[in-house]
Parts: sequence; structure tokens; C-alpha cells
Amino acid sequence: MTAQGVFITIEGIEGAGKSTAVSCVADWFSGRGREVLRTREPGGTPVAEDIRRILLTATEEELAEPTELLLMFAARAQHVARGIRPALDSGRVVVCDRFTDSSRAYQGAGRGIDPVVIESLASYAEQGVRPDLTLLLDLPVGIGIARAAARRGMIAKDRFEREAHEFFGRVRAGFLAIAEAHPRRVRVIDAAEPLDRVRLQIHAALAARFDEGEVGVHGGR
Amino acid sequence: MTAQGVFITIEGIEGAGKSTAVSCVADWFSGRGREVLRTREPGGTPVAEDIRRILLTATEEELAEPTELLLMFAARAQHVARGIRPALDSGRVVVCDRFTDSSRAYQGAGRGIDPVVIESLASYAEQGVRPDLTLLLDLPVGIGIARAAARRGMIAKDRFEREAHEFFGRVRAGFLAIAEAHPRRVRVIDAAEPLDRVRLQIHAALAARFDEGEVGVHGGR
Repeated sequence: MTAQGVFITIEGIEGAGKSTAVSCVADWFSGRGREVLRTREPGGTPVAEDIRRILLTATEEELAEPTELLLMFAARAQHVARGIRPALDSGRVVVCDRFTDSSRAYQGAGRGIDPVVIESLASYAEQGVRPDLTLLLDLPVGIGIARAAARRGMIAKDRFEREAHEFFGRVRAGFLAIAEAHPRRVRVIDAAEPLDRVRLQIHAALAARFDEGEVGVHGGR
Repeated sequence: MTAQGVFITIEGIEGAGKSTAVSCVADWFSGRGREVLRTREPGGTPVAEDIRRILLTATEEELAEPTELLLMFAARAQHVARGIRPALDSGRVVVCDRFTDSSRAYQGAGRGIDPVVIESLASYAEQGVRPDLTLLLDLPVGIGIARAAARRGMIAKDRFEREAHEFFGRVRAGFLAIAEAHPRRVRVIDAAEPLDRVRLQIHAALAARFDEGEVGVHGGR
């Protein structure tokens, strides 16, 4: 019998350390003999990465607000249908850098788009695929922006990273509100701590959820 | 005082003669001294044309159904916000090859996507911009497919033109149902007639609507 799929999402503002957290989670499951798919949003399949390029490339023609949201969910629908769902169906662990909570926090809390619109697009694009566990890497906005700025020499800044401090404050509050509303699904990680302490928190969250006989229980599908 | 914008959409199945009809409508308004923007969907702005490329390029990774619909409406939202609405606001006549009725007919009637989903995406993407007049070029499916096949030497066939006869039958019925539900907005043109007769029908439809003191009345915004 193959193991059942597990879907884990990593969320947080810029500079929270999501990439490191993805590696940490992936290594934890690999160490337990599980096959892991590491992926990210927007993107994750060739078509979804094409959509990502439209979203993240600063152009002379500014994206209208509905365009941005619809493209986000178009990329998500493709990622779910052609990347995440097949991997879960074949028993893999999927670790995804950002998922629908980012749309709720950035477009909803950050830009003020109606939550009803976001939830309606979410249920259409997700096709019933929902995270088993979400790790929210939380830290003060100032620290996140400073960390993101520190790596700017290496990574081209994109539309999102030009956003203001105030905006990220709303996004952070949005993420924390999601965690409060979904205490079982979302675990808040204090990402302002040193890296080795963040790793310990992540291991503890995974162990609490998946070392108690819950590994392989992929609910809600 | 500048003239008020007029928004005209041309709809119909493949081979119905939409491009010719767009020219016919554009020439009619130009002849009356109006500035005309000819455009098309999906597409119409640089970003929307990028989205069109994702939609129409046959790839090894098949588009999931929700991806296709969300991309369609993302392109439409951008086209409305950065192309159609500014043109209407500056008093131009916009003649558009396909608009939301194509989503209703192709994705709704053709592919069986829930009309509630389509109408909800439509109202989000259109941002209140609705056609003043829609010309539906109607003809038997067999004639449309034969005409579309005849030009295949010149135009690369895309995903849509590989669809089956039966599918176009549902699409045609979908268009006719829209016309029946919106008799004032939608005028059905018999596109199986010879070209000069089709032109006369289009001129008559335009004259009936816009030569009776209605030119420049752009309703609903």
C-alpha cells in the first residue's frame, strides 16, 4: 500500500525565510522515507510559471487589480490540477512555498479586495485540494524588509518587493488573522529567532502533527 | 463636447466571418466621423496578448478547465481596464471581436461549466463595461467548419479549431439562447448569406440602433 499524500504550505511576508523552511520540511519528511515534491506559487508547472512571469515582470502596462487576482488563481488552478493533486494522489509529500493564504493576506488584507471574491475564486481553483498543515513564518515587518533588502544584490526586485512597509503590516495582520481562525491547520512559527531555533520550532510542529500516527492522513479529499 | 463611447461586440462560431464584420462595423462608424478602436479577445493589450498566447498555444501540459476560464477572464479584465474603458471614456467607438458572450457559449454551453461561475467571473472582470450592441453572426456549424478549414493553409490551427462538430453545435445553440434572452442588445445576422447581403444586414442593424438619435448613448456605466 502506498502512503497517502500530505500537503504542507509555507506562508509569510518577504524576508520571513520561507525557502529555508521549505528545505527544512522537505528534509524532515525525506528523513522519514517519504518522497517529497518541493514547489512554489505562483508557478509550479510550466504553464503556471508562464503565468508567474506575467505577474512578476514589471511592465509599462500596469496590471489591473482584477487581472492580478485572476492570474494568481489561474496559476493556482493549473498547479493544483497538473502538479499538486497528481503528486498527492501518488502518495508524495508536497511542500509548497505560498498558497491561497497568500492571496488572502496580500490581495485581501493588503489590497482590500473583497474576501467573498477571493473565497469564491479559491474554491473554484483549488478543486478540493487543501493544505493539511500550514506553517506561518511570522516576524516584525521591519526585520522582513531588512532581510529582503539584504539579498537584493542577488535577486531582481519584483513588483511585490517594491511595496511599502505599511502594506506589509496589513499583510502580516492578515496572515495572523488566518492563523487565529484556523488554529488546527495553521501553526505560527516565530521567524525572528535565529535559524537553528526556527528549525526546532518547525520540527516540533511537524512531529506534533505527523509523528502521532497522523502521517499519511490526507484529509478533506 | 466629445461624443460618448459606443461598445460593439461581434460574436459567432469559427468561420462565421467575424473579422469581416469587424471591418464592416468600423467602416460604418468611421464614415460617420467617429474614431474607432478595433480590437479582439482574448487579447487587445500587450499583457492580454501574453495571456492569449498561453491560452492558444498547444502545449504538452494541457490547460485544466478552471485555468482556461480564469485566464480568459484575466485577459478580459486587463483588456477592459487598459484598452476598452479608456477608449470609451475618450469617446471612441470600440469594435471587439468576441467578448463575454463567447465565454458563455464556448465554456458554458460548449464545455458545460456552471453559468453561475461564469457570471460571477464576468461581473468581476467587466467592471461594469457592457456592450451597447452585439452582432451575432449565425450560421450552420457545417458551413462554419468548412470555411475555417479552407483558410487553414494560412492560419495555424489552434486548440479551439481542433474541437469537434458536436461541440460547435452546442456553442451555436448557446449563442442563440443569449440572443433570445437579450433581444435588445443582441442582433442575429444570417452569416450563411453571401458577403454583400451580410454587409447589408449589419448596416441595417447599425442604422436601426444608431441612426435614430441613439449614437453616443453609452448606457450602463
